[in-house]
Amino acid sequence: MNKQQNIVKIACIQMKPTVGEKEKNLWRSIQAIAKAATQGAKLIVLPELCNSGYVFKDRNEAWKLSELVPNGATCQAWIELAAKHQIYLVAGIDEREDDRLYNSAVVIGPKGYIGTYRKVHLWNEENSFFEPGNLGFPVFKTEIGRIGVLICYDGWFCESYRLSTLQEADIICIPTNWVPIPGQAENRESMANILMMAAAHTNSVFIAAADRVGVERNQTFIGQSLIVSHTGWPIAGPASPDREEIIYAEANLADAKDKRQWSKYNHIIGDRRTDLYDETLGAKVALVSSMVG
Amino acid sequence: MNKQQNIVKIACIQMKPTVGEKEKNLWRSIQAIAKAATQGAKLIVLPELCNSGYVFKDRNEAWKLSELVPNGATCQAWIELAAKHQIYLVAGIDEREDDRLYNSAVVIGPKGYIGTYRKVHLWNEENSFFEPGNLGFPVFKTEIGRIGVLICYDGWFCESYRLSTLQEADIICIPTNWVPIPGQAENRESMANILMMAAAHTNSVFIAAADRVGVERNQTFIGQSLIVSHTGWPIAGPASPDREEIIYAEANLADAKDKRQWSKYNHIIGDRRTDLYDETLGAKVALVSSMVG
Repeated sequence: MNKQQNIVKIACIQMKPTVGEKEKNLWRSIQAIAKAATQGAKLIVLPELCNSGYVFKDRNEAWKLSELVPNGATCQAWIELAAKHQIYLVAGIDEREDDRLYNSAVVIGPKGYIGTYRKVHLWNEENSFFEPGNLGFPVFKTEIGRIGVLICYDGWFCESYRLSTLQEADIICIPTNWVPIPGQAENRESMANILMMAAAHTNSVFIAAADRVGVERNQTFIGQSLIVSHTGWPIAGPASPDREEIIYAEANLADAKDKRQWSKYNHIIGDRRTDLYDETLGAKVALVSSMVG
Repeated sequence: MNKQQNIVKIACIQMKPTVGEKEKNLWRSIQAIAKAATQGAKLIVLPELCNSGYVFKDRNEAWKLSELVPNGATCQAWIELAAKHQIYLVAGIDEREDDRLYNSAVVIGPKGYIGTYRKVHLWNEENSFFEPGNLGFPVFKTEIGRIGVLICYDGWFCESYRLSTLQEADIICIPTNWVPIPGQAENRESMANILMMAAAHTNSVFIAAADRVGVERNQTFIGQSLIVSHTGWPIAGPASPDREEIIYAEANLADAKDKRQWSKYNHIIGDRRTDLYDETLGAKVALVSSMVG
């Protein structure tokens, strides 16, 4: 048998946190996680800031709802739950470190706390509450595969997926709080979902996004949680735009390692022309345009 | 009036070249260009290798069909036509330079030859005919806007769109010969189209792809030429999967310069975390993974 097998049941928990009600949100996350675990899920993704809610009145409110990672109450409860059910969790949390706040996601396994991702690209008012992520794009090696993490607006930057892939992520988990995009065409899939499909296809990596639903202080969230295979095509979801639900997919995460070797000449990652990218992609580039026209 | 106005009528010519029949292909391209110009198109995109056909038997055949740019017969005919109709053309051509061949696209304006793009990411057997592109991702400044060019498989690499955008392309023109992708879901848009939508949205840039149709030496091409606005949503097409046709869209190319400033805090290009990308994106990266799990 040449083909590696690494079948993992993935669950994305689409829920509706209530801003400020941290104990209730934690309790509801625990109920949903237990339900997904009972269904056989081994890797469970929860939304961005799922213990605190999203639309903070001010930084003081964000501060009051923040916790230490991994020693705060939320993280400790999730760690206990992961051990009990022998599962992996990726969940969004309002993180405090010294006098700084981060929009973070914790990665927890059956043996305890694994690591933290801090949102790199901050959206809108988040800039007045949180520090931009300072941990890069870590990829965590676990017994079920290599797990990368992004949060919401990170998914609008192709570099986020690429840097996770270059560190050999098999799956990228995305706790998110997607908001409506101006110009979203009706009766078609959301642009958020399209971005996931394109990224999964071009990086040959699985992507699992757990969104929230509901309206919070006049801000609507769009649901549509989705799990996409390394081919770019959905294998679960999109979930409802406005109801709490859990979506599930079984996937052979080892498939991500193929990197779509379509022909003897091609390798979707090896074909990158780093000789042309190196000097220019990170920074501002000199204009090489012609003025002839 | 704060808002810049730069309305351009764009046409993508979806056609069916015949491999080896260069004079016929050129003549048919001229007819289609004249038709599009008569409809008011100012920027006209043609497929990849539209004068030579695609599926060469061997390098010798590719060599015999190649031409100098801009002094070969095909280029000279297009230059004459562009002057006559006062239009801009982006068209795929089998280019010879010394003893090397390139899968190229020429950019031609009312005043003559503007420049050349050489396909950077070569697909499958192209690797045995062509040299990889050595001109980077040039963006050509013209009177109708800043024009970037990619060819087919280039569109599978997010870096291609990004580097064009960083050089302030308003529109990226894609001469292409898309082939079916294994696993393409039936009854939904092609992955090629999804990649264009994602790239246009995340770079806030217009994209116009002209594909070919037909079957050549057992290779099917999928048509579905598409023009996408800077929002990521289609404004023309997708065209038929198997018929020749011309699709048209009018667009204010100046809209690409907005870079989607959704909030006072956000700018879709300015929000890039180049401090985190710089050292890692071009090259192989050190693994920063944890072994805890």
